[in-house]
Amino acid sequence: MVLTVDVGNTRIKAAVFEGSKVLENFVFEKNELEKKIEKILKKFSNCSDLVVASVGNIEKQSFLAFEKELNIHFLTHEDIFPFINKYATPKTLGIDRMVLAAGATLQFPKQNRLVIDAGTCITYDFVDENDNYLGGAISPGLRLRYEALHNYTAKLPLLALELPDSYIGNSTQQAIHSGVVNGFVYEIDGFIDEYSTNFSNFIIILTGGDAEFLAKRLKNTIFANSNFLLESLNQTFQYKIDND
Amino acid sequence: MVLTVDVGNTRIKAAVFEGSKVLENFVFEKNELEKKIEKILKKFSNCSDLVVASVGNIEKQSFLAFEKELNIHFLTHEDIFPFINKYATPKTLGIDRMVLAAGATLQFPKQNRLVIDAGTCITYDFVDENDNYLGGAISPGLRLRYEALHNYTAKLPLLALELPDSYIGNSTQQAIHSGVVNGFVYEIDGFIDEYSTNFSNFIIILTGGDAEFLAKRLKNTIFANSNFLLESLNQTFQYKIDND
Repeated sequence: MVLTVDVGNTRIKAAVFEGSKVLENFVFEKNELEKKIEKILKKFSNCSDLVVASVGNIEKQSFLAFEKELNIHFLTHEDIFPFINKYATPKTLGIDRMVLAAGATLQFPKQNRLVIDAGTCITYDFVDENDNYLGGAISPGLRLRYEALHNYTAKLPLLALELPDSYIGNSTQQAIHSGVVNGFVYEIDGFIDEYSTNFSNFIIILTGGDAEFLAKRLKNTIFANSNFLLESLNQTFQYKIDND
Repeated sequence: MVLTVDVGNTRIKAAVFEGSKVLENFVFEKNELEKKIEKILKKFSNCSDLVVASVGNIEKQSFLAFEKELNIHFLTHEDIFPFINKYATPKTLGIDRMVLAAGATLQFPKQNRLVIDAGTCITYDFVDENDNYLGGAISPGLRLRYEALHNYTAKLPLLALELPDSYIGNSTQQAIHSGVVNGFVYEIDGFIDEYSTNFSNFIIILTGGDAEFLAKRLKNTIFANSNFLLESLNQTFQYKIDND
């Protein structure tokens, strides 16, 4: 059994896998890390390996307490990945984006793959049909846009994510919902259109905390799987074991 | 002569008008307000009226020092505007958006008008051909997106606005530029497409600090005028004089 842990900018997501099967998912805050992992390991005492991808400010030492019970795999740019990295600055490529690209490469072979991860940030990552990772884009995620509107202006309220009534918001709250949600959807559809114009034999994978909310609002057909990053972590680990 | 002042979320923009003609434009920081206005009035001693729209945290009292030299018009929701306001929450409709809608109504009569103001925030405001103001949308502006990426993540750098090389950013910097700039352009084109699908006899006015940067990158044809808010302030004032 493998415990996969994704340390994001906001929260920690984790899942226990047996082979390729997810046994259970977990979401918790960063300050709960040790306590929660202890609890998971008590329940799944057959876990042999812990695989971590961290883009938040939690480093390898935070996991060393579990070194006696588990093999710790804190993924870095030095690890082996199933794609050819064409990024000009491979050392600043977020490890989460590398894991997503790895998952796409392994799970959807021999096609052009765009992975869209809608979390704190939205990231776009593209692996072509010859397994070249070419890069992508990063922009603020849905909640970050709501927060920025409030924090950087004198008079706009902080709102929680809500589906707008219309593209013409007829109140301050509706105008914010329309700007954030419709703007976000137009952005994603715009990127997909751009890739679709330039590449055929093409699959789009949508993941991240906002994947389900977004999936039914995009005009393009996509493969939505909010668990794709943790699944990809598990697959990247299996690939590493097989190829090291 | 009229001195128009637009207090935004970030900076202050001002212009002196003689009739409908701009004599000079000014941009300054909020803490320079009094000093700069004194300087402008020294140069343009024929100024009789000061017209202000403020969405930043500068209120009417900041201008009272000039009450002996000038008539102060600090625009509020109580003023007379040339459109029928259909907004459900008219008191929280930003005065800048009301002025933009007024300018569009007066300058482009008897057509459907969408005003896009790309500043700290981007605002979309729609006045239909019967002069009904219907509302619009608000989302974070270009620089705000760059700042949010840096301030809300552990590892992303703060970058200055730059045109991306491609929609596929092949480095962390290029990925951020692509996400922010291309994402922003896709958002604007998405909103314009939505309005264009639903309304004909349609003009799009683009203004704000990023208007020039954006104008040549949008796929839709627009009327770009970075001075539109100050011109609209002047027109709103003339309209008020004529109709009070």
